Amino acid sequence: MMRLSLLGSTGSIGTQTLDVVRAHPDRLSVAALTAGRNAGLLVAQAREFSPEVVVIRDVGAAGHVRAALPSSVEVRCGAEAVQRAAERDGVGTVVVAITGVAALAPTLSAIRAGKRVAFAAKEPLVAAGELLVAEACERGVPLLPIDSEISALFQCLRGERTEEVARLLLTASGGPFRRSTRAEIEQATVEQALAHPTWSMGAKITIDSASMMNKGLEVIEAQRLFGVPLDRISILVHPQSVIHSMVEFADGSVKAQLACPDMRLPIQYAVLYPERLGNPFDRLDFLPSGRLDFEEADPERFPCIALAYEAARQGGTMTTVLNAANEVAVGAFLGGQIGFGGIPRLIERAMAEHEVVQRPDLVAIMDADARARQCVSRTISSTGA
Amino acid sequence: MMRLSLLGSTGSIGTQTLDVVRAHPDRLSVAALTAGRNAGLLVAQAREFSPEVVVIRDVGAAGHVRAALPSSVEVRCGAEAVQRAAERDGVGTVVVAITGVAALAPTLSAIRAGKRVAFAAKEPLVAAGELLVAEACERGVPLLPIDSEISALFQCLRGERTEEVARLLLTASGGPFRRSTRAEIEQATVEQALAHPTWSMGAKITIDSASMMNKGLEVIEAQRLFGVPLDRISILVHPQSVIHSMVEFADGSVKAQLACPDMRLPIQYAVLYPERLGNPFDRLDFLPSGRLDFEEADPERFPCIALAYEAARQGGTMTTVLNAANEVAVGAFLGGQIGFGGIPRLIERAMAEHEVVQRPDLVAIMDADARARQCVSRTISSTGA
Repeated sequence: MMRLSLLGSTGSIGTQTLDVVRAHPDRLSVAALTAGRNAGLLVAQAREFSPEVVVIRDVGAAGHVRAALPSSVEVRCGAEAVQRAAERDGVGTVVVAITGVAALAPTLSAIRAGKRVAFAAKEPLVAAGELLVAEACERGVPLLPIDSEISALFQCLRGERTEEVARLLLTASGGPFRRSTRAEIEQATVEQALAHPTWSMGAKITIDSASMMNKGLEVIEAQRLFGVPLDRISILVHPQSVIHSMVEFADGSVKAQLACPDMRLPIQYAVLYPERLGNPFDRLDFLPSGRLDFEEADPERFPCIALAYEAARQGGTMTTVLNAANEVAVGAFLGGQIGFGGIPRLIERAMAEHEVVQRPDLVAIMDADARARQCVSRTISSTGA
Repeated sequence: MMRLSLLGSTGSIGTQTLDVVRAHPDRLSVAALTAGRNAGLLVAQAREFSPEVVVIRDVGAAGHVRAALPSSVEVRCGAEAVQRAAERDGVGTVVVAITGVAALAPTLSAIRAGKRVAFAAKEPLVAAGELLVAEACERGVPLLPIDSEISALFQCLRGERTEEVARLLLTASGGPFRRSTRAEIEQATVEQALAHPTWSMGAKITIDSASMMNKGLEVIEAQRLFGVPLDRISILVHPQSVIHSMVEFADGSVKAQLACPDMRLPIQYAVLYPERLGNPFDRLDFLPSGRLDFEEADPERFPCIALAYEAARQGGTMTTVLNAANEVAVGAFLGGQIGFGGIPRLIERAMAEHEVVQRPDLVAIMDADARARQCVSRTISSTGA
């Protein structure tokens, strides 16, 4: 029985992780659940899955959670309690389903406690990939990607040698603006940007998908996680989102991983790794769609791609800045403060103002992150981007 | 340095194997070359690759080969000399590039001599798969498939567990008659049947591809080689021949292997296994074609598919009979003695007349093979099928 600590249980990945637990009651169980603010859903989840501990980050909601659960369940609140849920004894795998760079500290705690880490968010690896991978290697802790494209690469590399990789081919749906002009993309509304053609995901990642920053972050993530040089990582637009990614090897052979666009599949692969168990989720049927298309990614219309490659090329804290600036800019777009075209402009400015620190420690990373956020916020208040 | 014994060096797979050797002169060398009748090409190959021994099966051509080569090269003739080339000391891998069931005896010799066996022909595994796999397992000898679809499955299964396979998906180009009616297929000429849309191959395998017996034989081959139950092996028509085959796992994840339709790639994978080295062969470009189509295989128009599944279901010597009857029928079609529609009818009749022997030894296999050939020949002479 694998005991899970699920950080971010009420979000999109969190609730789908619990679907996976429901499908494998004899193999998976929940030791800890943590959530941000959604006390009602957290209480319902705790009643169903009987964890030992429940954490709500929002201190104000703790009383409600405490009152609603039996006294046998430990109830904690605050960010530090989330960290402790990541290190808890008896937990085998920590599922990090928290969005954004907030996932960084608990991911690091889990690694340092020697836990297997299944991680959904790209941000920790982008912001602090060198550090996380080094710490995980040192302890022999597997880092298990949940993100469908990174999971696809991870599966295609299974049993293969990284030094025999010629190219990682990250596939991209192209998002809602695949056929839009540069001017249309520049003026896109929040509603348009949230209308993803194939995947149902959280708001932040859906906006990243529309700007294709999503793919840029995955390029950095893949570079860090698999140790493949940047010039061997490419993006290929594949609107059906059936092939989740591919690996081309030195001998010219290509392996692709395909599945229904259902996050529960890569979640299950990560939490049960290396086992592949049956489940009740949908199976891929090749016949109805009948075709798979491929197009080149267009860096002209999607400047976030070029920004991500440039940040990866510079390395060190520059990817931290890319990620932080993007998080603030996406938040400002969702909040109606800036237009869609403002996102890459704000990131570019934050990158231009930053002096890279190579091989940063956590302090340098958090400092770069904070400065980039300030830079973007300042620019927004002074100019509205 | 891997020393190869190449059986069938002057055929389609044989000459392409030598292309692979040319591409890796520091890793691969040739210890033995054997051919059937093509003395001129065999001599040219021997001059280029300097093997220790050269075998020509046709006794009448031996004098010419002997006279044309320096005395340092051992020249032999006859079928038994082919066997000895398969067992030769100092040989690491035997490449079996002989067509048809003639490949069976030297394959068995190579396995019994403890050699790695890279095999191109489907027939030995179809005719005597249980025996070959048992002998290879006993000696820990790897059986390395060259056939592109079986190589694709072998690559997709790398690092995976066979018991977690939900389905092997063998892709088929559909051959030249993919869009033809049953009546048109029935009346097809040799020229039409030899016009394969995507692969350039030998005559026997090209006809098998037109009748889709090729896929039927691969179903049996995959069942034997990978130990996957028959009801977990499917055929999927994919006219672009870019995806060479796929594996669906129990968890709903699918892995596909893709490459240019170039036999030198699976040949290299087999002879250098498990290494993947760079080479000068073409790389797959996803953009120009831009699409991959999938269709269901039609057993109505291609009755050979159903015959192969039925033979596999009955097991034992029934697959030997399927294979032998098909070889004779294809030969008769190529020789103008029967029509294309006669091929499945002759096989069906030979299967109906056969009483299955389960777990056959080599004697029972050769006996079933000979009887099936006689049955088909007799039917052809008496009725013209």
